Amino acid sequence: MKKLLLPILAFLLLCINTMGQQSLIGGRQLTSPEINDDKTVTFRVEAPNATEVKISGDWMPAEGWLPGSKNMQKGEKGIWTYTTEPLNPELYSYTFIIDGFRTIDPNNVFIIRDVGFVMNIFIIDGGRGALYSVNDVPHGSVIRRWYDSPGLGRDRRVTIYTPPGYETSNVKYPVLYLLHGAGGDEEAWITLGRTAQIMDNLIAKGEAEPMIVVMPNGNVIQEAAPGEGSTGFYKPQFMVPNTMDGQYEASFPDIINFVESNYRVKADKANRAIAGLSMGGFHSLHISRYYPNTFDYVGLFSAAILPHQDVSHQVYNDIDGTLVKQKENGYKLYWIGMGKTDFLYQSCVDYRAKVDSIGMKYVYRETDGGHIWKNWRVYLTEFASLLFDN
Amino acid sequence: MKKLLLPILAFLLLCINTMGQQSLIGGRQLTSPEINDDKTVTFRVEAPNATEVKISGDWMPAEGWLPGSKNMQKGEKGIWTYTTEPLNPELYSYTFIIDGFRTIDPNNVFIIRDVGFVMNIFIIDGGRGALYSVNDVPHGSVIRRWYDSPGLGRDRRVTIYTPPGYETSNVKYPVLYLLHGAGGDEEAWITLGRTAQIMDNLIAKGEAEPMIVVMPNGNVIQEAAPGEGSTGFYKPQFMVPNTMDGQYEASFPDIINFVESNYRVKADKANRAIAGLSMGGFHSLHISRYYPNTFDYVGLFSAAILPHQDVSHQVYNDIDGTLVKQKENGYKLYWIGMGKTDFLYQSCVDYRAKVDSIGMKYVYRETDGGHIWKNWRVYLTEFASLLFDN
Repeated sequence: MKKLLLPILAFLLLCINTMGQQSLIGGRQLTSPEINDDKTVTFRVEAPNATEVKISGDWMPAEGWLPGSKNMQKGEKGIWTYTTEPLNPELYSYTFIIDGFRTIDPNNVFIIRDVGFVMNIFIIDGGRGALYSVNDVPHGSVIRRWYDSPGLGRDRRVTIYTPPGYETSNVKYPVLYLLHGAGGDEEAWITLGRTAQIMDNLIAKGEAEPMIVVMPNGNVIQEAAPGEGSTGFYKPQFMVPNTMDGQYEASFPDIINFVESNYRVKADKANRAIAGLSMGGFHSLHISRYYPNTFDYVGLFSAAILPHQDVSHQVYNDIDGTLVKQKENGYKLYWIGMGKTDFLYQSCVDYRAKVDSIGMKYVYRETDGGHIWKNWRVYLTEFASLLFDN
Repeated sequence: MKKLLLPILAFLLLCINTMGQQSLIGGRQLTSPEINDDKTVTFRVEAPNATEVKISGDWMPAEGWLPGSKNMQKGEKGIWTYTTEPLNPELYSYTFIIDGFRTIDPNNVFIIRDVGFVMNIFIIDGGRGALYSVNDVPHGSVIRRWYDSPGLGRDRRVTIYTPPGYETSNVKYPVLYLLHGAGGDEEAWITLGRTAQIMDNLIAKGEAEPMIVVMPNGNVIQEAAPGEGSTGFYKPQFMVPNTMDGQYEASFPDIINFVESNYRVKADKANRAIAGLSMGGFHSLHISRYYPNTFDYVGLFSAAILPHQDVSHQVYNDIDGTLVKQKENGYKLYWIGMGKTDFLYQSCVDYRAKVDSIGMKYVYRETDGGHIWKNWRVYLTEFASLLFDN
């Protein structure tokens, strides 16, 4: 037995060596970001050979399409630092720019992908920050699963949130279909949108009904997110062909049929909601009026409104007529959210005039900011808490 | 209606602008890595201000604990390139080192985390590469879920793979419990280990029985992986306290009870397997002999073997006696895998001498290389294909 104690020493040696390895690989083991008691945040990065290091964060005023940036200060041992002003509770994203090279913080493993770009995230707790955090509350499950879509001629991947207790309750649940924007996929809402955290927290507070949230892939030529399908690893692109040509809307019953035959759901209009951001708002608008007696709840988050002139598909025929039918069939909530500086703002004004002229009732929510995830998390929070007679 | 066509133009404008944004954010839109027809791989990175750019990849001879590195060549427009020799089919990882700053490839969004370090990955198809890829075969589901562990006094997060058809087949399945190493968590096997891809592909080829794979969190003080629990975002560390002090092994029936009361499984010894890498091999060794009539299949992948001298817990009492009992109760497969250059190699030699002296039969598999994921994916592949009378 004595001989067998040697491995322990070896193992402990590994621990030390591997920690050494980590420190070599990731640079010095700094704490970054460090959220200070006064809600300021300190960032640190070791780059002794750099002549200029900046931090670019989404709490700074934007510079065109990019988040603003600030210079970091070089200190001892080649460690650059920057401390923010106190920040409001929120989920924030940032990158470093080292001698012009934009990259991630090597001391922060919390990274999200937006289309083809990765960035670090952190959360300032309290308020919205708490809503986007994992708290000590009952947690739902998150499932990545494949289903058959005859309408699109392939198996497709979908992300599904089931509420806490789903597996054991024997209760039937209502369903929210939650659609991503251009450049997104079935990973967008669960990662960038913090859907599981928002739903867990709203349900725990009694501010949303327990519901299933279905997050499909809205790019008809994709079976799955980049890297998750049989086309392998490839660079995600903003515009995936055929995403706004009617095929997706027409095939949407495939998803509903899959969910309603595989999950314990209330399979009626009163218990179906559909919402989406940007292109997903476009999809939600058209799906809900093309199948005008299917959803009692519709959410258009910073929606792209109308199809391109050149696109011809039966889904886009008689838009006004199908909206009238949707109105006549009745619904409980038609919810429109838009940011004041969104480049789609005017189209939303025009669309509201259109639905006004038809006499469709809707709730309109206007926020600061533009076409950003910060708004879409807020819209999901507010919309979800209005669903299913909560 | 004419007014409403304006949003389309605005939307197309967004597309162009956002693609512009991507190009600004991520640097020039280069293709990197590019896998060439001859299985060489070309890497590209735009870093016009850099004086030295290296690539560090796990196909290069290691430099101590770190993967080796090669200089990239500066070309036009500040774009640095490097092309490998032809590479064998495999999943590879790499980083760039720009003027001494180690970071990811901004043109490759496929990133995995190992403990506290992130790196890019790519796959050379064919052979093992094909086994680790998503192919056009039926896919299982991957579930992140929480369960109650009375033995550890908290709800805990677990990752579960169910095989293709699980949801609709009404068949009962066998279960493999698959445990991570030190510094890992319930995300390790599904990301670094490519468990879902390996199982989908083995099952599709008839080389593994359809089975459920349960990937729990083996760090007793953690409820979930960093960032996935209520302790928020923090830097993952290699050594989490209390992971090898007996609590985890003692509490393991909590996981089995959860799985067997929540999934359609064959709840008997003949249909239970347990395996793990490094610390997870340690856990598998001790769990399987402490509950010596529970598992017909045991896999020790580069296992840490024995508890530290100072650790006293009833789990570690009478190791020889419980191994004898495990032998007497019978089992179908005791599988030991080890890399030739693993720092734990000698401890494995010693442990095999021990089980030889007890008269326990086992299968021994020795591979090149050391304490690395490349080996653990191979061990999973080989072990899984031997399970449940396949």
